[in-house]
Amino acid sequence: MSDTIMRPSPISATVDFEADGVQHGFLRLPYSRDDSAWGSVMIPVTVMKNGRGPTALLTGGNHGDEYEGPIALFDLARTLRAEEVKGRVIIVPAMNYPAFLSQTRTSPIDKGNMNRSFPGRPDGTVTQKIADYFQRILLPLADIVLDFHSGGRTLDFLPFCAAHILPDKKQEAKGFEFVQAFGAPYSMKMLEIDAVGMYDTAAEEMGKIFITTELGGGGTATAKSAAIAKRGVMNVLTHAGIVEGVVDEQPTQWLDMPDGDCFLFAEDAGLVEFAVDLGGAVRKGEVVARIHPVGRTGGLPVELCSKMTGILAARHFPGLIKPGDCAAVLAV
Amino acid sequence: MSDTIMRPSPISATVDFEADGVQHGFLRLPYSRDDSAWGSVMIPVTVMKNGRGPTALLTGGNHGDEYEGPIALFDLARTLRAEEVKGRVIIVPAMNYPAFLSQTRTSPIDKGNMNRSFPGRPDGTVTQKIADYFQRILLPLADIVLDFHSGGRTLDFLPFCAAHILPDKKQEAKGFEFVQAFGAPYSMKMLEIDAVGMYDTAAEEMGKIFITTELGGGGTATAKSAAIAKRGVMNVLTHAGIVEGVVDEQPTQWLDMPDGDCFLFAEDAGLVEFAVDLGGAVRKGEVVARIHPVGRTGGLPVELCSKMTGILAARHFPGLIKPGDCAAVLAV
Amino acid sequence: MSDTIMRPSPISATVDFEADGVQHGFLRLPYSRDDSAWGSVMIPVTVMKNGRGPTALLTGGNHGDEYEGPIALFDLARTLRAEEVKGRVIIVPAMNYPAFLSQTRTSPIDKGNMNRSFPGRPDGTVTQKIADYFQRILLPLADIVLDFHSGGRTLDFLPFCAAHILPDKKQEAKGFEFVQAFGAPYSMKMLEIDAVGMYDTAAEEMGKIFITTELGGGGTATAKSAAIAKRGVMNVLTHAGIVEGVVDEQPTQWLDMPDGDCFLFAEDAGLVEFAVDLGGAVRKGEVVARIHPVGRTGGLPVELCSKMTGILAARHFPGLIKPGDCAAVLAV
Amino acid sequence: MSDTIMRPSPISATVDFEADGVQHGFLRLPYSRDDSAWGSVMIPVTVMKNGRGPTALLTGGNHGDEYEGPIALFDLARTLRAEEVKGRVIIVPAMNYPAFLSQTRTSPIDKGNMNRSFPGRPDGTVTQKIADYFQRILLPLADIVLDFHSGGRTLDFLPFCAAHILPDKKQEAKGFEFVQAFGAPYSMKMLEIDAVGMYDTAAEEMGKIFITTELGGGGTATAKSAAIAKRGVMNVLTHAGIVEGVVDEQPTQWLDMPDGDCFLFAEDAGLVEFAVDLGGAVRKGEVVARIHPVGRTGGLPVELCSKMTGILAARHFPGLIKPGDCAAVLAV
Amino acid sequence: MSDTIMRPSPISATVDFEADGVQHGFLRLPYSRDDSAWGSVMIPVTVMKNGRGPTALLTGGNHGDEYEGPIALFDLARTLRAEEVKGRVIIVPAMNYPAFLSQTRTSPIDKGNMNRSFPGRPDGTVTQKIADYFQRILLPLADIVLDFHSGGRTLDFLPFCAAHILPDKKQEAKGFEFVQAFGAPYSMKMLEIDAVGMYDTAAEEMGKIFITTELGGGGTATAKSAAIAKRGVMNVLTHAGIVEGVVDEQPTQWLDMPDGDCFLFAEDAGLVEFAVDLGGAVRKGEVVARIHPVGRTGGLPVELCSKMTGILAARHFPGLIKPGDCAAVLAV
Amino acid sequence: MSDTIMRPSPISATVDFEADGVQHGFLRLPYSRDDSAWGSVMIPVTVMKNGRGPTALLTGGNHGDEYEGPIALFDLARTLRAEEVKGRVIIVPAMNYPAFLSQTRTSPIDKGNMNRSFPGRPDGTVTQKIADYFQRILLPLADIVLDFHSGGRTLDFLPFCAAHILPDKKQEAKGFEFVQAFGAPYSMKMLEIDAVGMYDTAAEEMGKIFITTELGGGGTATAKSAAIAKRGVMNVLTHAGIVEGVVDEQPTQWLDMPDGDCFLFAEDAGLVEFAVDLGGAVRKGEVVARIHPVGRTGGLPVELCSKMTGILAARHFPGLIKPGDCAAVLAV
Repeated sequence: MSDTIMRPSPISATVDFEADGVQHGFLRLPYSRDDSAWGSVMIPVTVMKNGRGPTALLTGGNHGDEYEGPIALFDLARTLRAEEVKGRVIIVPAMNYPAFLSQTRTSPIDKGNMNRSFPGRPDGTVTQKIADYFQRILLPLADIVLDFHSGGRTLDFLPFCAAHILPDKKQEAKGFEFVQAFGAPYSMKMLEIDAVGMYDTAAEEMGKIFITTELGGGGTATAKSAAIAKRGVMNVLTHAGIVEGVVDEQPTQWLDMPDGDCFLFAEDAGLVEFAVDLGGAVRKGEVVARIHPVGRTGGLPVELCSKMTGILAARHFPGLIKPGDCAAVLAV
Repeated sequence: MSDTIMRPSPISATVDFEADGVQHGFLRLPYSRDDSAWGSVMIPVTVMKNGRGPTALLTGGNHGDEYEGPIALFDLARTLRAEEVKGRVIIVPAMNYPAFLSQTRTSPIDKGNMNRSFPGRPDGTVTQKIADYFQRILLPLADIVLDFHSGGRTLDFLPFCAAHILPDKKQEAKGFEFVQAFGAPYSMKMLEIDAVGMYDTAAEEMGKIFITTELGGGGTATAKSAAIAKRGVMNVLTHAGIVEGVVDEQPTQWLDMPDGDCFLFAEDAGLVEFAVDLGGAVRKGEVVARIHPVGRTGGLPVELCSKMTGILAARHFPGLIKPGDCAAVLAV
Repeated sequence: MSDTIMRPSPISATVDFEADGVQHGFLRLPYSRDDSAWGSVMIPVTVMKNGRGPTALLTGGNHGDEYEGPIALFDLARTLRAEEVKGRVIIVPAMNYPAFLSQTRTSPIDKGNMNRSFPGRPDGTVTQKIADYFQRILLPLADIVLDFHSGGRTLDFLPFCAAHILPDKKQEAKGFEFVQAFGAPYSMKMLEIDAVGMYDTAAEEMGKIFITTELGGGGTATAKSAAIAKRGVMNVLTHAGIVEGVVDEQPTQWLDMPDGDCFLFAEDAGLVEFAVDLGGAVRKGEVVARIHPVGRTGGLPVELCSKMTGILAARHFPGLIKPGDCAAVLAV
Repeated sequence: MSDTIMRPSPISATVDFEADGVQHGFLRLPYSRDDSAWGSVMIPVTVMKNGRGPTALLTGGNHGDEYEGPIALFDLARTLRAEEVKGRVIIVPAMNYPAFLSQTRTSPIDKGNMNRSFPGRPDGTVTQKIADYFQRILLPLADIVLDFHSGGRTLDFLPFCAAHILPDKKQEAKGFEFVQAFGAPYSMKMLEIDAVGMYDTAAEEMGKIFITTELGGGGTATAKSAAIAKRGVMNVLTHAGIVEGVVDEQPTQWLDMPDGDCFLFAEDAGLVEFAVDLGGAVRKGEVVARIHPVGRTGGLPVELCSKMTGILAARHFPGLIKPGDCAAVLAV
Repeated sequence: MSDTIMRPSPISATVDFEADGVQHGFLRLPYSRDDSAWGSVMIPVTVMKNGRGPTALLTGGNHGDEYEGPIALFDLARTLRAEEVKGRVIIVPAMNYPAFLSQTRTSPIDKGNMNRSFPGRPDGTVTQKIADYFQRILLPLADIVLDFHSGGRTLDFLPFCAAHILPDKKQEAKGFEFVQAFGAPYSMKMLEIDAVGMYDTAAEEMGKIFITTELGGGGTATAKSAAIAKRGVMNVLTHAGIVEGVVDEQPTQWLDMPDGDCFLFAEDAGLVEFAVDLGGAVRKGEVVARIHPVGRTGGLPVELCSKMTGILAARHFPGLIKPGDCAAVLAV
Repeated sequence: MSDTIMRPSPISATVDFEADGVQHGFLRLPYSRDDSAWGSVMIPVTVMKNGRGPTALLTGGNHGDEYEGPIALFDLARTLRAEEVKGRVIIVPAMNYPAFLSQTRTSPIDKGNMNRSFPGRPDGTVTQKIADYFQRILLPLADIVLDFHSGGRTLDFLPFCAAHILPDKKQEAKGFEFVQAFGAPYSMKMLEIDAVGMYDTAAEEMGKIFITTELGGGGTATAKSAAIAKRGVMNVLTHAGIVEGVVDEQPTQWLDMPDGDCFLFAEDAGLVEFAVDLGGAVRKGEVVARIHPVGRTGGLPVELCSKMTGILAARHFPGLIKPGDCAAVLAV
């Protein structure tokens, strides 16, 4: 295993992370396959460096069907000028680039869920190779990491920025400062129960400041949600002192998801009808959603009732639902 | 051809459209295939009849990834009682039932777009056989037809109810009355340029009152959009005198799509960022959306600019866009 | 249309149907496609001719997942010698040859169900072109046609040979004589309700003697069912006077399927458990099969009860069943 | 590796294995994927507990296309009452539930063959996670394990119940006692040559009584084979003292598969014709099956001849055969 | 039918075929589908017009896996200037644009073979709609039509330009003049036996000059074959007087394919080994190719022997061959 | 891990590698799957042994879409007689047999690239099991290994034979001797930068003489390239003293690929036009290929320019190219 870890990454960057100025290039990952014997996956990357200062690593497309991050980051990569930066900004608008191109959560090549693939492997699948490159090359370069998420095609979220509750309280506090600076309509302190394989964990274990978001979902972005992402990333760079200026402060509502009672899972397939929309209030015992059976007319819907009082923070997005799908998430 | 038309439909109903009371059953369409030599497509149908009165034919799932109609109609089929009805209500919550089950616009069996398959064929594809059954059996039974649509997975709409501008002005006026009664937030008078193959046209050419909707999209339904559908269908039945009571009147804003300048098409692939959300105002020449190239960072986005002044009535939903996709529709 | 019919078939035979002796060859159907620009479908055919006498056209693989016919006919093509024949025998062991190779009921190329594709089209799909060739070239050469069927992957039958009840009673009587000669354990007089597109109908309308079989199913053949087919085809050739000798007479039980009450269709998906096996007696009202719901344990099965008294003549084969599938067929 | 083993299973049960009474619930396995970001696999489970006594773990659907077990176990889960039980019965009618739903031997998610996936991995594929849950949670709860198998879509077996020849002769003897109690028409003492990855081995290595079956095949169940399963499972519970009463004893014929000469493999593709049916006697050197070439008519079939004298215990089921397929298995 | 023909094409051009200058645009074909409800196929087109003169219609990508034409035409569209033209040049580098993008002979949308789809249908499949647009809009605008072909992925050809033997000998003679002007290494007079559905026939029946090519194959282009195409198209425009200058004359060898003996078809699957390469001489009776069976080692290859004396003009390209594939074409 | 290595291979050979004479047989690899519960992969193998002498292991089809090796080896297996051999010849014409049958580089079963799968695993994927069998059973039997490669469907090469630059100079020298003896038009001394997982490395690390080839590509073989392979293999056997006689010496041009500047990668998708063909001379800075954008006409092509002076030794084969594909390889 130690032998494996020592193997160099097969990925080579066409940019020099140590050079000043703006460079647009690629992380090139050789990928031999039936339709290209000597082909590669080419992951776009931008590096902006100017003098001394901290390094921000900005990522979107960790899941391929989440769009606020890629919009903010393709835009930032094109518009930010090196002279506006003090330190370094590394931008990868679409981490799981094959997934991003196929508009799917996971990679079409290996079904890899990037956020469950850390620390990765240099001799693993394409997704594991990308994770390994972040683990061993990019994360060590960073001081602060901002990883954009949204709900993707199958979930929809209230727009929030979040950081984790961590053992190192100093690291944790800095994270929440950055969340506050980001300025999303909602902010969240997350306690990850099963953190295995996550990019978040990989960064946090190296002592990096790590913040993330959920900014909507459904496999789309709105003008409003994209604007939150664009403002948020500039606020983060400003708060970090990489970009000069003042943070564009925004009111935010802090949310909490205390325990497993937040989650409502479907046990039946059917057509889902919500009784309340995102942000709406729900009392304990109230119906959050009904699942209509679709095999015939006249059947009784199954009611999913809240196990707590709070607001609807996330919901299943597609019109039909399957057994085992998370139907709704409440927060307080 | 005339010979073809005379062939009886292969579909048989397990309900009797002339019997009083509530019947839940199926339209059974024999469909021999590799995984069932003597299989059938079973399309759920409900008939409620009570004494004399007009017949309303209520349909959803004309496109399989549109959910407000199926929610309202599965709910109505279960809850409306025969004694509440005066006349007859025929409910088919999912016309293109195979498409509905697969959560796709068109049928997974034959890629048939139900709304371009009329008048159908008794010896055609599964979708054409369903269209033929509506054309020759169900539409002739109806006085008023309400067909629910939404944007589906790839479009999102302001919620509106609509009827067509028709040569028979009396028929047209009645249609707009029903649209007003439906009570969606927006209402529209539509001039169909290419009406070939549509269910709408089939119904209108028989002199039926035909109204339709677009109530959202993205392949989901919200509590709000489902409520519009549920209220709308009751208002239609009430306005028709089939259900007793008064119409639950709602304020509505009438929209118009005057000509081809309403439509903005993409000529380039990329990541789409909207500058305005549904319902937002746009002036002629303003940017409605930007398409970011995704092959590398640093590239200039293509700007799609409005050719008229109005509001954004519909938009492309997925995060990525392809050449030829309709990006946006404006209305006045 | 008449113009279409006049176009010559694109299929050319590598055998000469008028030459004496045994010829093994192909019906070559040009089929240009992505993996072969100038490719063809090659349907094996054998012709045995010797002097004067009637012509028997023997076919299997009309549906690609039925095996008794192909076994009997590949065997016969190899073993029968020209000098044993008086007249002509044309053998096509696998009519829908692409379906036969893919072990599916319908053609993998165009999903064509051969037995619903008659009279076919010379400019249609691959399946329609084959049907057209039989319609216009092979059937006119024949005096007697034997077309082997079995239940295929999704149905299982009691082994029977059958002919249709026909308007021409002389033609009908000859058909039943041949059925008797075939000597299957069961024999059936069939009244086809929907005969459109069938090979049977095409042959019968030309005044040919046409007999068919159902000899088992499940997508396999047993030693026993293959033996029935092999003996049956020799009996038919002997009864026709094409092969000299005496018919190997067998006891047979005549069955009848009087009306639609014979058929039991599933309206629910689930795990099917039969209460009786093929050939077993069922009284009216008795349970024939139970459909266990599989989404959770503890649910009540749906019972399918017989609408008549008789024996179980055919059943759904796979372990799971879908709404609309024919679960069971009873005969008297 | 030891670290891996220590990770808790991601599967959570909605039933309490220690509570008295009957509980129907699920083993919920979180499974994030493109069509459900926060989805789960929901495996139905029933627990019946009443006072003190041994625990029987009853499983079907280890392979997803084998139906006697699921029929017997869905039926038992619904009909057995807690008060009839003394001890505990844990019923999982479809272990590889995704495979069961897709009617395939292996999981459609990861192509996992459950019976080659033990001991599993908590961080592996879906199939490996299920195996791990049985390995670490369910098997330790059990005293006796009955795992139902049949031939599935591609094999057909004489109906038998079996246990393994084991190093621990006491454990082995108890296994054969339970096989005898099961009461299948045939019984078998099996010597597993390659036991790696099997559920059987996992259970036996923990010292559990483990019995299994092969009760038919072809991807279906008959009334007869389902009845064998239903009676067998009750006999096992009775013999174990969990259900009161006397075993419904049945005559059984003990079979043996002494060595590799039992197996006949195909080296050629073609249409397979068996010379003998299941249970039929075969002498050494006799033809068991012929493989007809299907590329053209007139070709010589390849003959597969028996290497021993015995009866046909299992056979390839589909009509066509491929090189490397097991064509037939003989037993003495 | 006549009604169908009168329907307008659904395709709209974003260029004005009557305007002077160079215009790059699209033929936009609305195509509603699951992944784009209001999507379109966008076929690139260039029009260059300058004053009076004949119109040349230049097309590539009639089959999507043939590349010399698209290379020459994308290049020409970019480099030719309006002032160099006298008359009009209409360039469609990829007629069957969906097939071109998917690198397949036929359309991935409907499996349509463009060159068997004429005259097309305005209400047909996507491929038929494109054919109809050429039939009714573009061909009538043209005086001379040059349609580039090559062998595609599955065939390889000696490079030749060709025109058809026609009933109108004046039209025919002009065609051969243009073939001579094109200046490919080989030239051919073709007698089309089955001309139904071809673009060639559609053009010729309107009295247009129509020439075509086969310039290599295998799904690629070489520097040499692309240069033949680029020089050829300029020669054609020069010969037509649309571009000023003199034809760059090249030596060419005229070939003839007299009858069906030119074609060698495979009846067996296997690994194909050619005894001679393209352009090589073959005598009657000599082996042209051997087909090695691949199921086992040691088997005899099937020999395909020439039925005439000539040179190898075309061959099957992939390493494996299937029954029915055209293995080789000889010419004299 | 060591435990894993000790498990016996699941593959069994039907030939005896120690017996004199010619044996044609199979490497049988049990492979249980949905369409064959007890199925196997059957890899053809031939062993020829006669008295004492060295062993040559000859392999083709390491990648499934490369044909010169399989042609030469199926031919050799059929034609070489045991009495011509002194020592032993082991022939596996298609190592990755599933890939060979599907005409793809990698295995259709597990997407395994055989030449990146060494040393393999006895409990891994099908491809890993084959690699393990070569690693532990076949390579140890060999003195000299000849592994045929070509470019496959997506690359085309100048025809060369090659051996690696190795630490053991004696081993290296012998390798180059065999390359010279092979007698391809070109010969190459290769320095492998990333040798992990290669068959070459596995053999070389055991001290075997290992030579390989690249003899063309595009997924086909020509008469010329097949003749090079057939002559080459005989020359190798002769040079090794296994076959008596003298090497048929051929002139060869030695090539070198000094560093990474040899490779030109595409960063853009499009239609690729080469400026030079294989074997053609290129100066530093010259255009080797142009990539035409295909989304619209009129766009500028991207030029790929040589970073060194040399000849074109390999090129991308398909007409379209993707970002990351290797477009061209130069050699000196």
